Amino acid sequence: MNHNHESSIRRRAKPVAPSRPTIKDVASRCGVHPSTVSRALSPAMSHLVADDVAKQIRAAAAALGYRPNVTAAGLRTGRSGLVGVLAPDIADPGFPPVLGGVTEALHKAGYATIVVDVGPHGSPVELVDRLIARGVDGLVLATVSLHDPVIEYCIGAGVPAVLVIRTDAGKLVPSVVSDDEAGMGLAVDHLIALGHRHLGHVAGPQDTSTGALRRAGFEAGLAQAGVPAQEIAVEAAPAYTREAGRAAALRLLERKPDLTAIVAANDLLALGVYDALAARGLNCPKDVSVVGHNDMPYVDMLSPPLTTVRIAQREMGDKAARLLLAKISDPEARHDHIVLAPELIARGSTASPRR
Amino acid sequence: MNHNHESSIRRRAKPVAPSRPTIKDVASRCGVHPSTVSRALSPAMSHLVADDVAKQIRAAAAALGYRPNVTAAGLRTGRSGLVGVLAPDIADPGFPPVLGGVTEALHKAGYATIVVDVGPHGSPVELVDRLIARGVDGLVLATVSLHDPVIEYCIGAGVPAVLVIRTDAGKLVPSVVSDDEAGMGLAVDHLIALGHRHLGHVAGPQDTSTGALRRAGFEAGLAQAGVPAQEIAVEAAPAYTREAGRAAALRLLERKPDLTAIVAANDLLALGVYDALAARGLNCPKDVSVVGHNDMPYVDMLSPPLTTVRIAQREMGDKAARLLLAKISDPEARHDHIVLAPELIARGSTASPRR
Repeated sequence: MNHNHESSIRRRAKPVAPSRPTIKDVASRCGVHPSTVSRALSPAMSHLVADDVAKQIRAAAAALGYRPNVTAAGLRTGRSGLVGVLAPDIADPGFPPVLGGVTEALHKAGYATIVVDVGPHGSPVELVDRLIARGVDGLVLATVSLHDPVIEYCIGAGVPAVLVIRTDAGKLVPSVVSDDEAGMGLAVDHLIALGHRHLGHVAGPQDTSTGALRRAGFEAGLAQAGVPAQEIAVEAAPAYTREAGRAAALRLLERKPDLTAIVAANDLLALGVYDALAARGLNCPKDVSVVGHNDMPYVDMLSPPLTTVRIAQREMGDKAARLLLAKISDPEARHDHIVLAPELIARGSTASPRR
Repeated sequence: MNHNHESSIRRRAKPVAPSRPTIKDVASRCGVHPSTVSRALSPAMSHLVADDVAKQIRAAAAALGYRPNVTAAGLRTGRSGLVGVLAPDIADPGFPPVLGGVTEALHKAGYATIVVDVGPHGSPVELVDRLIARGVDGLVLATVSLHDPVIEYCIGAGVPAVLVIRTDAGKLVPSVVSDDEAGMGLAVDHLIALGHRHLGHVAGPQDTSTGALRRAGFEAGLAQAGVPAQEIAVEAAPAYTREAGRAAALRLLERKPDLTAIVAANDLLALGVYDALAARGLNCPKDVSVVGHNDMPYVDMLSPPLTTVRIAQREMGDKAARLLLAKISDPEARHDHIVLAPELIARGSTASPRR
């Protein structure tokens, strides 16, 4: 039997451990402590090592064929190189672009992301606890409510955290959001300019910043346009889903049958508004105009293409990751709150009212 | 100054490390080795500890308020509790449901997932290398081509890997896919039953199993229906994107202006077919019927709603995770190849041809 036959070796399914060079080999070759090697070879930590020393260590590691074990490195440096991301619902097409921005920025800095889907029944505190037990260096939270215990929990545990998309009432940790009030102002101005006076709002969950601020922006926009309060109807959806949007829109149409336009707090809710209009035999935009919020992928291909408020999703994720990296390297860093400007994208779902 | 004031303690942003119980405290209370405690408290490893011992250890840990440090536990048990997932494009709305199935099954088993977006220019081998350096216990690959060096690389490194959505030609590792040939058979039969005889196919990348098998299924379905080969036109897209689908469909319409139906190898390509028809002033389905593949979220809301082949995305992810868990606990386990049955969902984008 020829045990050196290449394919039989490959099939052994065990790494060839004994011959693998260790961090000590690299350290003794360079005359430094193993922890210095560990820092020099970690993209997240190499700035702590003098440039020429780091270069010498990288050269020695390459010459020896040394590959760092990041788990062991984490125990030496006190950093795992892992960041946890709490996602509201990973199957919501609006979230992946934000996640893409987060992971790209973190990947460049040498961090890997663990994405946890909180879902409708998940406990954020429990999930954060699991992530802390895994030694994450920081957290990106895309799920917070206005008064969310998970924020104090992260602060108490000493884990750097930043908020993205949604923020909390207390502004206790850094955040990156879209200007939700201004976005709704754009939507309202667009409809007023088309001649609408009877507007309704399918609001998002009122315990989230996006739900509360977009509703406030809707009401402020109409007040500014001189539309009397009794012409304004609002129905809040308990979740950002197509189903909840459908139910809220049906309630709205029941209460105000003379509505000519509905603004939804996000695009998934707007899909539900489309469903409700179809169920009532109403045409969009001839009978009722619809405006969404977020410009999630492929809403330009709906029937009719959805007029919506575009938010800078990828940039939001990128900026949140950068705030987190700053916070990880300096826990006393300033708490920045970044608010990005949205943009109205007018498509086929809005038109002048019939009468 | 009152240093015990609750809010000032919470703001300190440092964990109260000295009072935290350690694994040794739990071990000495139970009279076992710390590695036994580590295994007993790891959902991924607890089956290796006798039930009554595990119960005693969990009770002691709860009584002491001990929270395991998973990074340190990983070094003791030789397992990190992390699984890496290589995603083709996280912003493709078809992928999150598969990912949801993977993460849910792994989460239940105590594993966390690191999701890496390979993107159009990423190097899978390099990304796998990074994940191995992080000590992942296994990999779920949703990105492989038919002859992908990343598979031999995983085998060589001794890291359990399973394939999902796409498989390789050599069937070297376990896989879970949809029956791609049968799915295209359903699409072709549906169009033939409507009366179509002039069909075109916007194929996916031909170096992937989905691209090659769906094309083979398209051609076999037409041959079986007795459609002469010269009536069949195929244009392959170099990537599964809306843009590549548009370009391929334009080439198809150029070559065969008498086409009455186009089957696309996935829904993103089908969106591009819609774009191409609009660019040529053709109506779907009156001039040209369109069938997609995957039934990704919200294609029922397109104009017209897309007829497509539904694949069991969430189940696919769930089954892939289970195969991986089996492989992690027994590297010599059988290599199962699971093929799930697809289903045709007929909607408004298909109709009988005009003539």
